[in-house]
Amino acid sequence: MPAIRLFGLPTDINSSFERGAAAGPAAIRAALWSDRGNLASELGPEIGVDIAFTDDGDLPLAEDTPRDDAAIRRHVAMLHEDGEVPLALGGDHAVTVPLVEAAATCCGPLTILHIDAHPDLYDDFGGNPRSHASPFARICEAGHAARLVQVGIRTLNDHCRAQAKRFGVEIVPMAGFTPDAVPVLDGPLYISIDLDGLDPSAAPGVAHPEPGGLTVRELLALLHKQTAPIVGADIVECHPGRDVGGVTAILGAKLVRELAALIDRNGPWKP
Amino acid sequence: MPAIRLFGLPTDINSSFERGAAAGPAAIRAALWSDRGNLASELGPEIGVDIAFTDDGDLPLAEDTPRDDAAIRRHVAMLHEDGEVPLALGGDHAVTVPLVEAAATCCGPLTILHIDAHPDLYDDFGGNPRSHASPFARICEAGHAARLVQVGIRTLNDHCRAQAKRFGVEIVPMAGFTPDAVPVLDGPLYISIDLDGLDPSAAPGVAHPEPGGLTVRELLALLHKQTAPIVGADIVECHPGRDVGGVTAILGAKLVRELAALIDRNGPWKP
Amino acid sequence: MPAIRLFGLPTDINSSFERGAAAGPAAIRAALWSDRGNLASELGPEIGVDIAFTDDGDLPLAEDTPRDDAAIRRHVAMLHEDGEVPLALGGDHAVTVPLVEAAATCCGPLTILHIDAHPDLYDDFGGNPRSHASPFARICEAGHAARLVQVGIRTLNDHCRAQAKRFGVEIVPMAGFTPDAVPVLDGPLYISIDLDGLDPSAAPGVAHPEPGGLTVRELLALLHKQTAPIVGADIVECHPGRDVGGVTAILGAKLVRELAALIDRNGPWKP
Amino acid sequence: MPAIRLFGLPTDINSSFERGAAAGPAAIRAALWSDRGNLASELGPEIGVDIAFTDDGDLPLAEDTPRDDAAIRRHVAMLHEDGEVPLALGGDHAVTVPLVEAAATCCGPLTILHIDAHPDLYDDFGGNPRSHASPFARICEAGHAARLVQVGIRTLNDHCRAQAKRFGVEIVPMAGFTPDAVPVLDGPLYISIDLDGLDPSAAPGVAHPEPGGLTVRELLALLHKQTAPIVGADIVECHPGRDVGGVTAILGAKLVRELAALIDRNGPWKP
Amino acid sequence: MPAIRLFGLPTDINSSFERGAAAGPAAIRAALWSDRGNLASELGPEIGVDIAFTDDGDLPLAEDTPRDDAAIRRHVAMLHEDGEVPLALGGDHAVTVPLVEAAATCCGPLTILHIDAHPDLYDDFGGNPRSHASPFARICEAGHAARLVQVGIRTLNDHCRAQAKRFGVEIVPMAGFTPDAVPVLDGPLYISIDLDGLDPSAAPGVAHPEPGGLTVRELLALLHKQTAPIVGADIVECHPGRDVGGVTAILGAKLVRELAALIDRNGPWKP
Amino acid sequence: MPAIRLFGLPTDINSSFERGAAAGPAAIRAALWSDRGNLASELGPEIGVDIAFTDDGDLPLAEDTPRDDAAIRRHVAMLHEDGEVPLALGGDHAVTVPLVEAAATCCGPLTILHIDAHPDLYDDFGGNPRSHASPFARICEAGHAARLVQVGIRTLNDHCRAQAKRFGVEIVPMAGFTPDAVPVLDGPLYISIDLDGLDPSAAPGVAHPEPGGLTVRELLALLHKQTAPIVGADIVECHPGRDVGGVTAILGAKLVRELAALIDRNGPWKP
Repeated sequence: MPAIRLFGLPTDINSSFERGAAAGPAAIRAALWSDRGNLASELGPEIGVDIAFTDDGDLPLAEDTPRDDAAIRRHVAMLHEDGEVPLALGGDHAVTVPLVEAAATCCGPLTILHIDAHPDLYDDFGGNPRSHASPFARICEAGHAARLVQVGIRTLNDHCRAQAKRFGVEIVPMAGFTPDAVPVLDGPLYISIDLDGLDPSAAPGVAHPEPGGLTVRELLALLHKQTAPIVGADIVECHPGRDVGGVTAILGAKLVRELAALIDRNGPWKP
Repeated sequence: MPAIRLFGLPTDINSSFERGAAAGPAAIRAALWSDRGNLASELGPEIGVDIAFTDDGDLPLAEDTPRDDAAIRRHVAMLHEDGEVPLALGGDHAVTVPLVEAAATCCGPLTILHIDAHPDLYDDFGGNPRSHASPFARICEAGHAARLVQVGIRTLNDHCRAQAKRFGVEIVPMAGFTPDAVPVLDGPLYISIDLDGLDPSAAPGVAHPEPGGLTVRELLALLHKQTAPIVGADIVECHPGRDVGGVTAILGAKLVRELAALIDRNGPWKP
Repeated sequence: MPAIRLFGLPTDINSSFERGAAAGPAAIRAALWSDRGNLASELGPEIGVDIAFTDDGDLPLAEDTPRDDAAIRRHVAMLHEDGEVPLALGGDHAVTVPLVEAAATCCGPLTILHIDAHPDLYDDFGGNPRSHASPFARICEAGHAARLVQVGIRTLNDHCRAQAKRFGVEIVPMAGFTPDAVPVLDGPLYISIDLDGLDPSAAPGVAHPEPGGLTVRELLALLHKQTAPIVGADIVECHPGRDVGGVTAILGAKLVRELAALIDRNGPWKP
Repeated sequence: MPAIRLFGLPTDINSSFERGAAAGPAAIRAALWSDRGNLASELGPEIGVDIAFTDDGDLPLAEDTPRDDAAIRRHVAMLHEDGEVPLALGGDHAVTVPLVEAAATCCGPLTILHIDAHPDLYDDFGGNPRSHASPFARICEAGHAARLVQVGIRTLNDHCRAQAKRFGVEIVPMAGFTPDAVPVLDGPLYISIDLDGLDPSAAPGVAHPEPGGLTVRELLALLHKQTAPIVGADIVECHPGRDVGGVTAILGAKLVRELAALIDRNGPWKP
Repeated sequence: MPAIRLFGLPTDINSSFERGAAAGPAAIRAALWSDRGNLASELGPEIGVDIAFTDDGDLPLAEDTPRDDAAIRRHVAMLHEDGEVPLALGGDHAVTVPLVEAAATCCGPLTILHIDAHPDLYDDFGGNPRSHASPFARICEAGHAARLVQVGIRTLNDHCRAQAKRFGVEIVPMAGFTPDAVPVLDGPLYISIDLDGLDPSAAPGVAHPEPGGLTVRELLALLHKQTAPIVGADIVECHPGRDVGGVTAILGAKLVRELAALIDRNGPWKP
Repeated sequence: MPAIRLFGLPTDINSSFERGAAAGPAAIRAALWSDRGNLASELGPEIGVDIAFTDDGDLPLAEDTPRDDAAIRRHVAMLHEDGEVPLALGGDHAVTVPLVEAAATCCGPLTILHIDAHPDLYDDFGGNPRSHASPFARICEAGHAARLVQVGIRTLNDHCRAQAKRFGVEIVPMAGFTPDAVPVLDGPLYISIDLDGLDPSAAPGVAHPEPGGLTVRELLALLHKQTAPIVGADIVECHPGRDVGGVTAILGAKLVRELAALIDRNGPWKP
C-alpha cells in the first residue's frame, strides 16, 4: 500500500478578503496529535498503527507565489517518485494549483473531486489570476483535469456558470443533495477539500462561511464510496482565527485520518 | 417582476425574556454587504445584478407598539401601492402583526408559511397580548390568515395546542420531518421566518435556542418548492449578542438573497 | 405512571484527558429551569405539569470512586424501591457503572441503549479500569447487560473492536445511518447518552468532540421509537467549560424533558 | 437640571473596513434595560430614578449621509431648544459630525473631549471625506471646536500628526498616561467616546481593536473630573458582531449611566 | 500552621437573574488540578507541597435553603473543631450567610473583607430575603460582623447606601482606588470574594458583569497585605456558562492558591 | 539604522501541555497586514514607511529539534552578517534557545530582557530538557546570558527559585510592580516576549494563561525605556486555537511594530 505523507502549506497571500488560513496546518496538526482526539478512522485502520503515515511538518514557503509554487511542485514530484501519496494541508485554496500540476505531470490528467462552497473558477479575482477564487480556472486551462466534479457549490454567479460550462465542470447540485448523487470516479483521483464546502455549523473556522453546506456524514459517505486509486489530496482554508472551540481544526484532523485510510484502502495508482 | 424592498425593524420591546433582537437588522445588513459573503442566490440570480432589490435601511420606530405598528403598516401599504414586495428584517416576532395586517388589507386574507420553534399562539404572555409569543394569535383572530402552516414547531404545550385547534393552524410535525411534508401553498403567500426555527447549530444567535430544528438545506428546499406569488416576507429574532462568529447574521443575509430570488421567480400577485 | 427523579452526579475524576464534566449537572439544571427555555416535550406533555418529575439536586460525592459508587447505588436502589425512575446527569461516563449495577440488581440484566462517539469498552485506559473510556467493559463483564446496543460510534480501534466482539455488543454503523437502523428494544431498558454521540455542531461542550455524529432529530427519532419500559437513564459528559453560548447545556435540558416524557409514556417495568 | 435624551444612530455606511456598528444602539439599549445590570451610576444617582432620563429609541436614518446628517442636526437642534441634552449612541464615528455641528450652531464653538484609539483626523480615507476616520478633520475645518482634546490615541502616523498640528489638537500622550494628565475643561463641553479608546480587554466589540488603551477606571476618572456644563455626548463604534459575552454592550450601558449622571451633576450650559 | 480544607457549594437557587453559579466549584476544581496551570502561589509555597491543603469535593446540597444552610454550618463547625480553615467555592453569594454564621459561632464576631461589585445589602430582592443580593444584610443583622469592609463596590443605590449606613459598613471607594486604601484588618478575619468584584476583563464568567472593577494585581495586593489570622474564606459567583476560554475558572483556581498561602502564612486564630 | 527582518518559527513540538503555538506566526502575520489594524508604532514611525522592515515568511522547520535549531541558528547568523536584526515569531518558547545562541555567537554574551509568567528555568520538564519550560536553563548553562532580567514571573516554585539563584537571574517582582522597577539595560540587548507574561485579559490566546500579568501599557513602558542597541527579539507562545476574537494575534502584531520601532530607534550594536 502507498505510504501517505502529510505536509503543511502555511500561506494565505492569495486570500481575497481576510488572511488567516496560513495558520491552518499548525492548528490541524495540533488537533491530530492531541489526546483530546484519537487515531482511528471510520474505515477501520488507525493512522501510524495500521497505515504507513508520516507527518513531515510544513514546507518552507517564501510568500512569493511563483517560488512557492515551484517548491510545492518539487516536493510533490519527489513524493511521487518514491511511490508515496501527498496529503497537503492549506493554506488558502491557491495551493491546489501546484499540487495538481505536479500530480498531473507525474500521472497524466486527473479526475478531480472538489468539495467547496464556491466553484473557484474566476478568471481572476480583484485582478489576481492566482486568487484563492481562481485555482480551478488555472487547472482547467492547463488541461490537468480529465474530469472535474464539484460538490457543495452554492454561490454560483453568471461568470462562474459560464466558466463551468467552458471547462465542462460537473457540478452536483446542492438542492436535494444526497451522497448518491456523487458519481464513483475513475483514477488517477485527486481530492481537494475546501472546508467551507461543509456547513458552517460543522466548520465555522473559514474565511467565507456559507450556510447550507454538506454535513460531515455526507462528506464521509461521498468520500468512502470512491474506489479509485488516489494520487493526491488536500484540505484547505482552515482559518483558526475564526474557529470556535477548535472544532474546525478537529474536523480537519478527522479528514486527515479518513483520507489516509481511503488512500490506503484504494491502493496505488498504476497507469 | 416585482421589485423587492428590504427594510429593518429594530425593535425588541415585546421580547419575553431577553432583549437584543433590535440589533438584528444592522447585523444582517453588515453581513449582506460584506465581501466575506457574496450576492448569489441558489436559485441562480444575484441580488442587485439580476433582481431589482433595494435596501431602504431601517424604519424609524418609537419603542411604542401602537405607533410603531402604524408606521410599519403605512410603509408596507405604500410599497404595495407601488407594486413592490416588502422584505422585513426584525426585530422580535411581534413585528409580523402589522406586516401581515398591511399585506392582508391590500391583498385579502393570506396564506402564511411560518417557520419557528414556537407556535407563537399564546393568548397573551406574561400579560402582554402583543408579546413576541403571541403574534399569530392576533393574526388569526383578525382573520388575516386564510391558511396558516407552521414548520419547525417543537415546543407545543396544551394551551398552544388548543389555540392551534381553535384557529385551524396546520402544524407540520418535526418528528420524521422532510421538506416533502410541507405543502405547496397558494397565493397570496406571506413567509415569516423566525431564525429559531432552524437548529441552534445553524442559528445560535437567537434569544430562545431550541435543539432539533430545521437544517438550512431543509429550509431552502421547503422555500424553493413554493410557487405562489409572494406578497411579503420577514426574517426575525436575529440576536447578535448571542451569535457566534456572526454565523446567524450570515445566515440571515443568505435568506434575504434566497427570499428575494424566490419572490422574483414566483412573480407578482394578481388577485 | 412512574415518577421521574432527576439528580446530578458532579464528578469527573475518571476523565482521561481533561476534567470539566463535573460542572455538567449545574449547567443543565440552570438551562432546564431558565425562562430562556420551556417545559414542553416533543411527545406532548410538559414536565412538572403533565408528568410527575422531581429535581433532587446533586448527590453528595467524595471524589473517591468506590465510596461514590456505593452512594450512587444506594440512591438508585432507594428510588427503585419506591417505584420511581432515576434520571441521572453526569459527570463523566464512569458514573454509568454504579447506575447500571443498581438497576440490574433490582430488575435483572438490562437492555442498554448507549449513545456515544466512543465505545467506552477499553479494558483499562492509562492504567485506570474505571476510566470514563471503560464503563461498558465493566458492565459487560459483570453480566449486567442482557443486550448492549451502541449508536453513534465512530472511533473504533482494534482493541475496542475485539472487546465488542467478546461482549457481543451490537454497534449500529454510522455509515449510512438512519434511525430506522436502530432496533426497537425490549425492557427493562436503560438509556445512556454521552453527549459526544451527537455531532459537535449540536453539542460542542464535551471533552472529546468527534465530527460526524448524530443530529438532534436522529437522536429524538431513535429514542421516541423505543416502547419498552425504562428503568433508568443518564445524560453524561456535558463540559460547560468548552460549551459555546450554552447550547450543550440547553440540549441536555431538552433531553431531560424528552427522556422524562418517554419514561412516562412507556410506563412502569413489571418483571 | 437638564433632562437627558438618549437616542440611537444605527448607521455604519462610513466604516472603512467592516460594517457592524449600526447594531450598536440596540445592543447597548438591551444591556441598559436588562436585569443583568442595574441603574446606578458611580456618581450616586440612578437614571430614571434620581435623574430625568428618556430613551427615545433610534432616529430614522436613510443610509444616505447628507440626508441622515440633516435628520441628526434637526433632532439635536430640537432637543437644545427644549433645554435638553442629547446623548447619542452610534453607529460609526462619522455621526459625530452632525451631532457636533448642531450643538455648535446652538451653543457656539465647543470644547471637545474625544476618547479614541485613533485621531480620526484623516483628510479623507479611501477617498471618503466623511469616513469614520475623518470626523474631527471636518469638525475642525468648520470651526466647531474651540478646543479639541484627544485621549487614548495610539496610532498616530505622519499625516494625522500634521493634521493635529494644523488644527491645534491637544493629544494627551498614552505613554505614562494617568487621568491627572487630562485637563479640566471649560464649557460648553462635548464628549465623544469611541469605544476603541478603551483597551480591547475592556471593549473587544469594536471594528479596530488596538491594544494598550484606557482602562474603564481611567476613563471614569477623567470623565468625573470634568466640571463644565455638557451640551452633548456620544458613545460610538460598538460592534456587537465582534463582542464577547456582551461585555462591550454592557460597558456602553454603564457609560450611558455615567455620562447621564455627569451631565446632571454639571448642570445646564448658560452662555 | 492550620490545614486548609477546600469544598464546593454547588447551588444557585438564590440567584436573582440567571442561574449557573452552581457549576462554579466543578469548573474551578478542573482548572486547579489541570496541567494547564500550576500549584505555585505568589507568596512562595505550593499547595499540597509546602502547605497542608485538602480538596474535599462538594458538599451535598438539597436545593432547599434552610436544609442546605444547616449542612454548611455543620461542615464548617466540624472543620473549626479540628483546627482547620474552611475555603469554600460557591455557588451564588447566598452561601456566605451560613459560612459566616458558623465561623462567628466558633470565633465570635468577625472582621469581614468583602470583595464585590455590589454591596449585597438589600433588605430583600424580589421578595427573597435570602437572595444573593442580600447576604450581608442578614450577616449584619445577626451581629456576626464586628467590622465589614467592602472593596470593589460600584453599583450603590439609595437603598443600599442607607443599609450600609445603618450597619456601619465601610466601603472603600472605587474612584481613585489603590490597594493602599484598604486597611490592614484585625482577626478573626473572614474573606469573601465575589468574582464580579474584579473587572469583567479579568472575570467575564459571572452573572452580573460590571465594568470598572479591580484588576487581579490590585486584588492580590490588598489580600497579601492582610496579616491577621484567617478563619474562613469563600470564592463565589463563578458562572462557567458565561465564561470565555475558561479564564474565570482559571482565576478562581489562582485565588484558591493565593488564599491558601495567605491562610498558611498568617497562622491560626487564637482568641 | 539596522534593517529589521521578521520571520516565523511555526513549531510547538516542545510544548508541555497542549500544542497550538505553531499557528502563531500565521495568525500574527494576518493581523499585522490586515486593514483592521494599522502600521503606526507608538514611538512614531510606521513600519515599511519610516523603518526598513521585511517580512520573510516562515523558516522551514522539520519538527526535529536539533535540525530545526541548526536551521534557526544559520538564518540568524546570516542576518547578523548582513547587519540586520532578527525579529522572530514563535512557536513555543523552546525556539529562543537557538535564537539566542546565534546572537551570542555573533555578539558575545547578551543582556536578556525576558517577559513571561513562568521563569522557564526547569532543568527539564517531563524528561525533556528542551521543553518550552526550560529554554533559559539551557541559555544560562551555555553562558549566553551576561545578564538575565525576568519580568512578569508569577509561578515560581522551589526548583525554579533554586535555578534562578544558581544562574544569577534577576526577577523583577510582580507584587507592587511598576515599569520603574525594570532596569535600563546595556547592550547587546535581546528581548524575548512570551505572550503569557501579559495578563490573560490582554492575551487570552496562550496555552497557559496565568492571571495577574502585565498590562499592555506596562509592557510598552518597560520596552520603550530601553535605550541599548537590540541584537534580536522574539514574540512567542501565541496560540490562536485559544484566542478570543483574535485579540492575542492583534497584540502580537502591535508588539512587532513596537519592537521594530525600538530596534530602529536604539540603533545598531557596535561592540
